[in-house]
Amino acid sequence: MPLPLAFLSASPEGAHLPLQMLLVFGSAKLLAEVAQRLRMPGIVGGLLAGILIGPSVLNWIRYDDLLRALAELGVMFLLFQVGLEVKATELLRVGRVAMLTAILGVILPFLLGWAILVAARHPPIESIFMGAAMVATSVGITAQVLAAKGILQHQTARVILAAAVIDDVLGLLVLAVVSSMGEKGGIDFVGILTSAAVSILFVVAVVEFGARTVNVVLPRVTRRLKVEEAEFAVAVIFLFIMALLATYSGVAAIIGAFLAGMALAETASKRLHTLVHGAGELMVPFFLASIGLQMDLSVFGDASTLGLGIAILIAAILSKGVGCGLGAWKLGFKDAARIGAGMIPRGEVGMVVAQVGLSKGEISQSVYGVAVFMSVATTILAPPLLNFVYRDIAPAEPPPDDDLPLELG
Amino acid sequence: MPLPLAFLSASPEGAHLPLQMLLVFGSAKLLAEVAQRLRMPGIVGGLLAGILIGPSVLNWIRYDDLLRALAELGVMFLLFQVGLEVKATELLRVGRVAMLTAILGVILPFLLGWAILVAARHPPIESIFMGAAMVATSVGITAQVLAAKGILQHQTARVILAAAVIDDVLGLLVLAVVSSMGEKGGIDFVGILTSAAVSILFVVAVVEFGARTVNVVLPRVTRRLKVEEAEFAVAVIFLFIMALLATYSGVAAIIGAFLAGMALAETASKRLHTLVHGAGELMVPFFLASIGLQMDLSVFGDASTLGLGIAILIAAILSKGVGCGLGAWKLGFKDAARIGAGMIPRGEVGMVVAQVGLSKGEISQSVYGVAVFMSVATTILAPPLLNFVYRDIAPAEPPPDDDLPLELG
Repeated sequence: MPLPLAFLSASPEGAHLPLQMLLVFGSAKLLAEVAQRLRMPGIVGGLLAGILIGPSVLNWIRYDDLLRALAELGVMFLLFQVGLEVKATELLRVGRVAMLTAILGVILPFLLGWAILVAARHPPIESIFMGAAMVATSVGITAQVLAAKGILQHQTARVILAAAVIDDVLGLLVLAVVSSMGEKGGIDFVGILTSAAVSILFVVAVVEFGARTVNVVLPRVTRRLKVEEAEFAVAVIFLFIMALLATYSGVAAIIGAFLAGMALAETASKRLHTLVHGAGELMVPFFLASIGLQMDLSVFGDASTLGLGIAILIAAILSKGVGCGLGAWKLGFKDAARIGAGMIPRGEVGMVVAQVGLSKGEISQSVYGVAVFMSVATTILAPPLLNFVYRDIAPAEPPPDDDLPLELG
Repeated sequence: MPLPLAFLSASPEGAHLPLQMLLVFGSAKLLAEVAQRLRMPGIVGGLLAGILIGPSVLNWIRYDDLLRALAELGVMFLLFQVGLEVKATELLRVGRVAMLTAILGVILPFLLGWAILVAARHPPIESIFMGAAMVATSVGITAQVLAAKGILQHQTARVILAAAVIDDVLGLLVLAVVSSMGEKGGIDFVGILTSAAVSILFVVAVVEFGARTVNVVLPRVTRRLKVEEAEFAVAVIFLFIMALLATYSGVAAIIGAFLAGMALAETASKRLHTLVHGAGELMVPFFLASIGLQMDLSVFGDASTLGLGIAILIAAILSKGVGCGLGAWKLGFKDAARIGAGMIPRGEVGMVVAQVGLSKGEISQSVYGVAVFMSVATTILAPPLLNFVYRDIAPAEPPPDDDLPLELG
């Protein structure tokens, strides 16, 4: 389909970048305003903006490498900001509940996704890929909603964040197993166990020892520097190093960004919070819009795909909500429900799995479309759901004033 | 030449972006620290970082579309921040001096650049392109140095900023004339005059009326919005709109960004300043590094090109310094020298002209290399020079405290 606005971006030298920025940032903020007025979280607007200007509706914007990079930077800064609000010790305290939450929240969605596709007579490997796409939680959206409400200090928020880190490691394992299944020579168990060990080692090392070391070392380094905004410079360099190490140890860059923020949580100044918030404010809308931009509703041309999409969406919500809720059962029904709701969004993680399946030729275009739809729809439904289950929790701190860093909206 | 670090960026999914970010941002900040310790402005480090990691020395980084986009965003936010410190009325007050400064600062460099290449027996059209590449000032670096010193309120800073805006319009005209010279049918005077009229109209409309309107309208809009960080959202959308309008009216996007900031100068809150500063802190290093990344010193393989490069560099410095200094003569020798020094950097603007010449086949690869060298070297030499000529000017305001927006370093 042609891009109706292509004539605009084609015109003068240098117009392309500001035009793209304006369309994405502007529509995200405009729809966020509309969402707020309808008493929904503002980020729903950002997500819908991507659907509106993307291939599903207006087709004004192509999801290109630049938008992908800005989106990745946006979600990195988002998780970095969230990490700045969380201390490693607090995460460790909820470790067991989080572990159970993550494990049950991986098993149930995988089984249900697989079963539905088997029942609908899809090939075995395609069914397994669908199950794998339903496994991993994308914590960015939940984190943003909780941060905007000022309740990142709530116990359930800790459990969600810790479970999301564990979930990412488990998702990596599932993807590794699944993607090696179609290949010749069978499953490479040694390779998979090695990468599992590396990723677990990375996370444990950072949470157990890294944070303490960084809390001592980085402020000393910063104090000796003469460069302007030295704390910000050191923090951002540390963020990129951790994101890079995370990808090398097999987990997502955003998990590295979150751990980087967490390592700095105890020493970060108010000014660092605000500067990081400024950078995030610019780039987070690109992350939100990018999720919607990747969805193409035209895949639901025939009724059977539409039926499958709806079944998978319901399964994705129920299996994750119930699985994680069961894992957190000992915290009581209300908190278990909050944790279950917080783990529902699949976001970009589910889409990555679907892309791997598509690129290997293991899943069809329509199943790919269903997986993307599931990822986007769970992500869009999560904020109103979170608004509902957290309706009677007050912010742990006074509402953000002019310079507090909590308003990630 | 192969990129020695390519194996790193090729490895795991998602590693490329944090690696690129780390190399550019990290090296820019590291060399900025070194520069500060050698009592040079920090941005010299950022500029040298691009040369170090680019094709001239280590060849670790290719200047690709993502870095170009981040660099453009960086310089847009830089000029937007500078605009926030400048009121339109103050710019108009120095209009006449600025006009004379800009005009003489265009004529002298053009004539000298052209004459040197004619003397060195280059073809006429190539000589004209060289002159054109020496015309336009890139105000970003000077603005950053003056902002970091807290002296954007000084009269000479106003003249430099106003002259840079006029200079951009003149540069556009020169480029339009020059690039139509090689084409069939001769020079399209009607088209050129039309685009001149549009660009002048745009600038005058914004400076004369736009700022006043915006100062009334935008705060009212912002007050009624419910979206989080509404002022930042409105300001950034306005920034992109103005950058886009600027490119459509023929001037550079950064001139639009500067005018956008200026229009908001009287009503911007402290929080807006800080948030914009945070976004800028992240992206400005990419702008600085991108300048050095575009230079390839290997072009100076033969002595005659090296000689030409040195001659053109000296001519670029003297002609701009003397031309602009003469234009501002009535302010006295010291201020005239300051203004002359501030107009010397050619930055990305000279490179754009050289690229047009190269793409049209009107200039050779070696003359292109000389033009890029001239652009980069004038930009790197300007900060120490500015440090020197402004050494006895104290900041007009108290030195930036924890939340003042002036430290653009």
